[in-house]
Amino acid sequence: MTTTVGTTPRTAEGVPALRKTRAAVLAGVERIIETVLAGERARWRPEAHQALSLVDAIGDLVAAGGKRLRPAFCVSGFLAAGGSPDEPGLGRLAAALELLHVFALIHDDVIDSADTRRGRPTVHVAQAGAHRAAGWRGAPERFGENAAILAGDLALVYAGQLLSGAAAPVLDAWAELCSEMMVGQFLDVSIAAEYNADPEMSRWVAVCKSGRYSIHRPLSIGALLAGRADLDAPFETYGRALGEAFQLRDDLMDAFGDGEITGKPAGLDFEQHKMTLLLALAVQRDERVRALVLPRSGGIDRADADELRALLSESGVRAEVEARIDLLVARALDALKDAPLDNAWRQELTAMAYEVAYRDR
Amino acid sequence: MTTTVGTTPRTAEGVPALRKTRAAVLAGVERIIETVLAGERARWRPEAHQALSLVDAIGDLVAAGGKRLRPAFCVSGFLAAGGSPDEPGLGRLAAALELLHVFALIHDDVIDSADTRRGRPTVHVAQAGAHRAAGWRGAPERFGENAAILAGDLALVYAGQLLSGAAAPVLDAWAELCSEMMVGQFLDVSIAAEYNADPEMSRWVAVCKSGRYSIHRPLSIGALLAGRADLDAPFETYGRALGEAFQLRDDLMDAFGDGEITGKPAGLDFEQHKMTLLLALAVQRDERVRALVLPRSGGIDRADADELRALLSESGVRAEVEARIDLLVARALDALKDAPLDNAWRQELTAMAYEVAYRDR
Repeated sequence: MTTTVGTTPRTAEGVPALRKTRAAVLAGVERIIETVLAGERARWRPEAHQALSLVDAIGDLVAAGGKRLRPAFCVSGFLAAGGSPDEPGLGRLAAALELLHVFALIHDDVIDSADTRRGRPTVHVAQAGAHRAAGWRGAPERFGENAAILAGDLALVYAGQLLSGAAAPVLDAWAELCSEMMVGQFLDVSIAAEYNADPEMSRWVAVCKSGRYSIHRPLSIGALLAGRADLDAPFETYGRALGEAFQLRDDLMDAFGDGEITGKPAGLDFEQHKMTLLLALAVQRDERVRALVLPRSGGIDRADADELRALLSESGVRAEVEARIDLLVARALDALKDAPLDNAWRQELTAMAYEVAYRDR
Repeated sequence: MTTTVGTTPRTAEGVPALRKTRAAVLAGVERIIETVLAGERARWRPEAHQALSLVDAIGDLVAAGGKRLRPAFCVSGFLAAGGSPDEPGLGRLAAALELLHVFALIHDDVIDSADTRRGRPTVHVAQAGAHRAAGWRGAPERFGENAAILAGDLALVYAGQLLSGAAAPVLDAWAELCSEMMVGQFLDVSIAAEYNADPEMSRWVAVCKSGRYSIHRPLSIGALLAGRADLDAPFETYGRALGEAFQLRDDLMDAFGDGEITGKPAGLDFEQHKMTLLLALAVQRDERVRALVLPRSGGIDRADADELRALLSESGVRAEVEARIDLLVARALDALKDAPLDNAWRQELTAMAYEVAYRDR
């Protein structure tokens, strides 16, 4: 792999080779996560076998699939920055990002009262089911949520543990990423409660809650691990634009997607009266949407959800959001143009941008 | 301060001096926590002012009091191990332990549906109140719990951030402490659901959930920071015995204590059908207790709580638990006898043991 900039893109040879390298690192990430969980099972089995329930909840969610988006961008950022695939801290950092994501999913599903995730029952639902089946004391749903709170907490601890020994700049970036994500999630919950249709705020929340920690932060922390500060600026521009596109696609899939394909329930944002950018724009653009959503005190039920979907399309807002996604992708790719990158990586990051922005799950 | 062992204890001069040293370090710990929170307020105020609600929830709980038990034992372990009070990592480690504790309190209060903590409304109750007062959308209690989940998450992130840069052995001990605490809390919830009266399991849970991370782990991690592996064994014996005594005192205060003095609600363990060691012993010892508590499907209400309290005394179980506390204190002090410690620290750790085991809050 050369590091020339500005020559004719080398496609067929370059990209397959780097994908192979990245895939090998990502396979190692899976093994690292499994090793952590296996170690914990061995630790708790003798004296606290009930704890296996928590470790398995985490393990099941990891095994259930997921796009491994954050590890992929982290490893890509590192390799694109010229880092060596044998760097021991790389796999641990990427594994930490995935466990952080699993922590966020478990808590978010409690917060949103979601029933499915990655095509399976959410942790709190599964734990409630186990409680009910065993005929235990107290309310099953309450137990389920309590177990999920603790399972998420444990996943976050495992993530942090994988970062021990990392260099100070990486740890600082990690801490910033974590707190940003949690604040973003709280903002999401707050603006859903306030229910003011403010597109700028909704856009900012989407970026903060999900966009940054999904694309920008993993990419940048990977480059940071490889010591390439000169990639900071282009990766931030690329990452932020693509992160927003990622969240907008998430909002569109929630409103219009097929739950069987996405693996999570459709219409959940409506039910949870989330003030997504999609909805905020629609409320501002279209009187009929405002009349449908604002007077309510709770979420939007199934019947009205269908009407809302129709209005989102009719009012042109769905098309407007799709156009914004296109614009964001263009902005992301523009950031790569003059970046000090190997051309094969420029191509690969371009391909990843398209994948992320136009995915159906 | 000398390090002679086995000479006549030097009480009046030695202990006041080391308490003064420790107090100065602990004052620094408060400043460290305040600096973290102030930094976060400044960070989020411009673009995400709603986030201040979370930061303030953490700050309010820190400011509301609390015994600072864990920072005190951590700093004591470090100083007793001959560490220098100017060690920069010391305050950060102790601050991390207090923020970890705040995280645990916030989540535990959600899990236990507790209304008060440190004499004030719990985070989820306060957040629900704010939601209600503002007339926001959705159920206030649900919002309150969601906010508390995220506030706790944020406190845990802040705690981890304070540990960045610590040496590997300290980080390993930290990770072990964190996961042990969370597993302990899950066991507590699990055995409350299973509701089998198994004193050994209840004892183990009490130790794992609270005892270890309250006394043993902070003490040991302090000594570890000072590089004194020879204090491992005595500190573990002292810490585990005193940790169990601490939790047993907690159970007694919950059953018999004055909520105004303790700052948290009395009888909560009964309401939450917690299977404490106190209750497990009583169920085994006394038919009347078994008949009162086992047939129910939920927790024990106020009227029956009074009857239960009376039975706990009558059956001799209250006295039995008090006797066990006495035994545990003796075991803890015995561990100090031949430990390679300055006599002033032997005296101080003895005083701390009595304070912890016989406290009323």
